[in-house]
Amino acid sequence: MSERDQSNGLEHLFTDTVRETMDSSVYGAWRSIRDADAVPLSFGFPYPDSFPNGELLSAAESLLDSESECALQYGGGEYADALPEVIVEQARSRGISCTTAEVHLTNGATNAIDTVCQTVLEPDDTVIVEAPTFMGALRLFRNYGANIEGYEVDDHGLDVDALADDLAAREAAGDALPKLLYTIPNFHNPTGVTLTEERRERLLELAETYDFLILEDDPYGQLRFDGTEPPPVRALDQTGRAIRANTFSKTIAPGIRTGWIIAEEPFIKQFDRINAGGEPSFTRGLIARYAEDGQLDRAINELSTGYRKRRDRMLESLAEQMPPGTTWSEPNGGFFIWVTFPEGIDAEAMLTDAIDQGVAYLPGSFFYTDDGGTRHARLSFSHVTPVKIDEGIAALADTVRAETPAIEADD
Amino acid sequence: MSERDQSNGLEHLFTDTVRETMDSSVYGAWRSIRDADAVPLSFGFPYPDSFPNGELLSAAESLLDSESECALQYGGGEYADALPEVIVEQARSRGISCTTAEVHLTNGATNAIDTVCQTVLEPDDTVIVEAPTFMGALRLFRNYGANIEGYEVDDHGLDVDALADDLAAREAAGDALPKLLYTIPNFHNPTGVTLTEERRERLLELAETYDFLILEDDPYGQLRFDGTEPPPVRALDQTGRAIRANTFSKTIAPGIRTGWIIAEEPFIKQFDRINAGGEPSFTRGLIARYAEDGQLDRAINELSTGYRKRRDRMLESLAEQMPPGTTWSEPNGGFFIWVTFPEGIDAEAMLTDAIDQGVAYLPGSFFYTDDGGTRHARLSFSHVTPVKIDEGIAALADTVRAETPAIEADD
Repeated sequence: MSERDQSNGLEHLFTDTVRETMDSSVYGAWRSIRDADAVPLSFGFPYPDSFPNGELLSAAESLLDSESECALQYGGGEYADALPEVIVEQARSRGISCTTAEVHLTNGATNAIDTVCQTVLEPDDTVIVEAPTFMGALRLFRNYGANIEGYEVDDHGLDVDALADDLAAREAAGDALPKLLYTIPNFHNPTGVTLTEERRERLLELAETYDFLILEDDPYGQLRFDGTEPPPVRALDQTGRAIRANTFSKTIAPGIRTGWIIAEEPFIKQFDRINAGGEPSFTRGLIARYAEDGQLDRAINELSTGYRKRRDRMLESLAEQMPPGTTWSEPNGGFFIWVTFPEGIDAEAMLTDAIDQGVAYLPGSFFYTDDGGTRHARLSFSHVTPVKIDEGIAALADTVRAETPAIEADD
Repeated sequence: MSERDQSNGLEHLFTDTVRETMDSSVYGAWRSIRDADAVPLSFGFPYPDSFPNGELLSAAESLLDSESECALQYGGGEYADALPEVIVEQARSRGISCTTAEVHLTNGATNAIDTVCQTVLEPDDTVIVEAPTFMGALRLFRNYGANIEGYEVDDHGLDVDALADDLAAREAAGDALPKLLYTIPNFHNPTGVTLTEERRERLLELAETYDFLILEDDPYGQLRFDGTEPPPVRALDQTGRAIRANTFSKTIAPGIRTGWIIAEEPFIKQFDRINAGGEPSFTRGLIARYAEDGQLDRAINELSTGYRKRRDRMLESLAEQMPPGTTWSEPNGGFFIWVTFPEGIDAEAMLTDAIDQGVAYLPGSFFYTDDGGTRHARLSFSHVTPVKIDEGIAALADTVRAETPAIEADD
């Protein structure tokens, strides 16, 4: 660390929460994984061919032509104004009935989660998460000084029974009850599993009984390959406790970084009021122009095909190549497969060897707040071609095989 | 108010700060002014001809062509990566020597101010502001539960003597000292005045003596029409206490909503860590591509000419048309002129009549936290053509003349 990175003697001016968390960061590790010379099964990046470069350029041309006086102005023009209506239509297609007054636009899903945090989280409030869960959300909850409590995920999503028992025990003991529960119900990051409808209903009941809010984060839900979609938590919600975050990052492109929240109007009113993300009206107009005439819906269909092909290839490749003792989830959509390695393997320790073999993944431990996830890894099938997926899984299989004698020798 | 706007009975789940501020909003008033059928001298909007529609479209075409695989990806490509370097160059041209490690990108200046707030403001911390000041900043400080204390502005900017006396008195009395001082040193919003170099130096001394930070917000500084620029506070800073916020909203366009913070690395490290605004990599690449080959610098020169013409016309028009007893500031750049009406006029109460006469402005009271600003109005010369400026000032002069007999009758 260079001298420039050191303290400037002004840290006492930071907030208590910033001071308590200022040294926490996994960015160093992330960067070395991102920059590794290996097949990237690590980050949940869309595959490059998926980007609608030409379509967005045409949309930009049309937008700047038809709204030459206001597309770049504060607030933008009619297209930017129309974006909430596009979102209401998208929500309707998922079974959610809402109006534009129940929509708050954000700069992506992370900004959506952050907005909810700023509105409801005090330091030391308890947030319930799936264990494992999206590390970006864990980072945000930590930024607000929250206590994060994880509950296990099985093939049907969050273990709601365990949660219910624990909430009852907390109440009986007079312990703190949660303020917020964060869930990724569809094609969960990192496990790929989907929360059943019955469990969604039970979560809503628990929220009502124990007086907490549910934050439903659904970036992958529209990229379904098999089966039918359970209703969104927000669609099942009768009490106004479900807040839904979403993004165009996976259905258009991450680089446009535009998302939204759907919630009851009293929440939206506060989200609008505290909003300090700026209004990128050019991008908003661009998306609305692009979505016109069903272009977004067609793109989602094509993307589902592209991701299904990659999911299929990764599942085949895992079945063909992995040594016995390794298991994995079989997602019906999204970007991720969750791998469980043979007992004794530490996926974080193994990563260096894996990168040397030619494959990068994210160690399962990155998705836990405690020491969980050691034997696991998240594989993203979203980013590379099917041929590269084969290469990556072959390299992973070689790495695991090379590791296994070492484990046996330790026994 | 419709029933849908009412409480959903879940407000107890908001943070204390949100609950305390949840009903505060001036959006209603803003909207009626924005939508008025009158010459808009109200909001600080760039004039529509200033938007580089064609240049940005060409930049988009070039960017999507040369970076077809990554312009829309997480993080973007080489152009998005190069944006901090563009900002370092811009800063250098203003006399600020910094590296890209001292730059944090934001989604506009509001997001920049908010990021600083989230890093340093606890509820009940004191923030010093110019009185009057940018109402958007006041809103953000309130969102963090800060106590806002205003100090008067004269023709040379913030009254630093009054501030120094008061800080000494506070310290002697054991009262709370500020955490942050917020200033708009160049072509101040709303008064148009510029803080002298001597006062900038004194502010930095006070920050060191009384242990606070200075947030220098400089959206207008590059749009100078006359005179020479005093060094930015950040350029004079020897102690690392000055944090500089800036934006491309006035030099490219508001719709691209991209800004930045320049500060010491320990601050930047925290801003990066807590950042939840998302990274609009497409827009960032677009700006870097647009700025290539001096295009941004040429645009700033042209914009200065366009705004100077408008400033000149508004000053001429005020001199020709306003009845005696009205005075105004004479800014050397930026977007705004601050008008002082004859005694007895309430600019907020007069606004309805002004709109009926055909001109909209922002009442001075909008820029104060207390009951100040009654006799004042902020006029923006930025938005409309010189011909429309004449029309607007004529309507304002008529309104004031119509108001004046009423005042005399009251005496």
